[in-house]
Amino acid sequence: MGDTWQSVMDHAVGLARTAGALVREAVQPDMKVMLKSSSVDLVTQTDQKVEQLIIQSVKEKYPTHSFIGEESVAAGEACVLTDNPTWIVDPVDGTTNFVHGYPFVAVSIGFAVNRELEFGVVYSCIEDKMYTARRGKGAFCNGIPLQVSQNTDINQSIVATEFGSNRDPEVVDKIFSSLRKILCLPVHGIRGVGTAATNMCLVASGCVDVYYETGVHCWDFAAGAVIVTEAGGVLMDVGGGPLDLMSRRVVAANNKTIAQRIIKEIDAFTPTRDDDPIEPNTTK
Amino acid sequence: MGDTWQSVMDHAVGLARTAGALVREAVQPDMKVMLKSSSVDLVTQTDQKVEQLIIQSVKEKYPTHSFIGEESVAAGEACVLTDNPTWIVDPVDGTTNFVHGYPFVAVSIGFAVNRELEFGVVYSCIEDKMYTARRGKGAFCNGIPLQVSQNTDINQSIVATEFGSNRDPEVVDKIFSSLRKILCLPVHGIRGVGTAATNMCLVASGCVDVYYETGVHCWDFAAGAVIVTEAGGVLMDVGGGPLDLMSRRVVAANNKTIAQRIIKEIDAFTPTRDDDPIEPNTTK
Repeated sequence: MGDTWQSVMDHAVGLARTAGALVREAVQPDMKVMLKSSSVDLVTQTDQKVEQLIIQSVKEKYPTHSFIGEESVAAGEACVLTDNPTWIVDPVDGTTNFVHGYPFVAVSIGFAVNRELEFGVVYSCIEDKMYTARRGKGAFCNGIPLQVSQNTDINQSIVATEFGSNRDPEVVDKIFSSLRKILCLPVHGIRGVGTAATNMCLVASGCVDVYYETGVHCWDFAAGAVIVTEAGGVLMDVGGGPLDLMSRRVVAANNKTIAQRIIKEIDAFTPTRDDDPIEPNTTK
Repeated sequence: MGDTWQSVMDHAVGLARTAGALVREAVQPDMKVMLKSSSVDLVTQTDQKVEQLIIQSVKEKYPTHSFIGEESVAAGEACVLTDNPTWIVDPVDGTTNFVHGYPFVAVSIGFAVNRELEFGVVYSCIEDKMYTARRGKGAFCNGIPLQVSQNTDINQSIVATEFGSNRDPEVVDKIFSSLRKILCLPVHGIRGVGTAATNMCLVASGCVDVYYETGVHCWDFAAGAVIVTEAGGVLMDVGGGPLDLMSRRVVAANNKTIAQRIIKEIDAFTPTRDDDPIEPNTTK
């Protein structure tokens, strides 16, 4: 079966490159923007067009595979992970960046079998960086092996996170209280490029020690999760337990020491799960 | 005199490129780091070596010119802007990024005559992007003209800022209260690449609508100031008045509408001025 998934991964890399070229070409002033859950949750025709392109290609080549995609779920499709081989796709991770031409926009393709992630592909298309990782085979950027940082001292850390698109005061309270405690530990700095997938690739690359966020979706971090672990990093839930792909909460760190230390400062909250059949795309 | 300053600018571009190549080559794991004002205010041998290289070259070629450099001021040199032609230099803007290999590190060279900025050069050396602007002659990135965004709606904005290296609770209070109000206007997003110079170049490029920060130094934003205005943008003080190069406070926006709107949300505070003879490098 190993070879089977390798050929699927090769196909995913090709698809990510094709999709990323479309996204890169679509960056332009005065883009037409639509709204999703709020006035700052944006979607464009490119998101929808690129997801359709990926779905179409997967359906033709792997008709038995399942598909979880950001825009399909937004359009009412179920978001349930089964044992069936499943593509977990964000056609444009960093849509806000895309709309503004801010240079971090990623095509993110994760692939799970028996609910376990087999490979991840993140194409940071404006930078032209192709991040890839297959379970047990290491992580790479444009073919060069990736390795997380060796740092175990939180005071010497670069921490990445995002403010997200939820402006509910209770959620903003928790985001700000966590961030302030972390800043004042102190840490060297707080960063965030505006896409979960790319933030995770920066952890894998060693220039960010830990990334955490609540409110992300499985399609934002499934691919990055494989890339982080294959670069030697660890994944956890922001509450300290194991990562749950559908929980919308993630800590991706260079090592367990840093992950556990940052978790102590995070005021956890619980968004509606991605696999909640009632409100799959909103935050409680 | 116009031609004179053009040849000085050409020399500055060459120096920035040489310095940037040194910085780029020095990015490596396990870098030796020293501390300045606090445990998160970092400096490396590269900062010092690169500043020496620039000073040496300026002294040889333009022996009558004055020099304000981050590391020279840290070593006790005066930080006073006179009418004399003056180079205002940060050899490594984004030292924390540099130490971690985070891919935004800039060599920043501003040049003032009669206390007016004549040109700015910002070399984002890991990206290999050379930003240049001369007063009245436009702003460029790798030779391509730059133009700020046309957006006048704060709710459609990308805002850049930084947490800085001051962890004084009163300062952190103001930084967080301002940021929260801005996030909840709402705006599309908050970003920050970890260097003032590059944040300003992103305003000039049109992918960030406004950048603001208190606690920066003249060497962080002198060059960027020319690049922003020459790309069509505006500069102000965070209190709403005109920009004061020595005040350590800056708003750089695409236009006056956005600048004035963001200023309403900023809880201003007053760091020790760069030209304060007592404590030039600390925050009150």
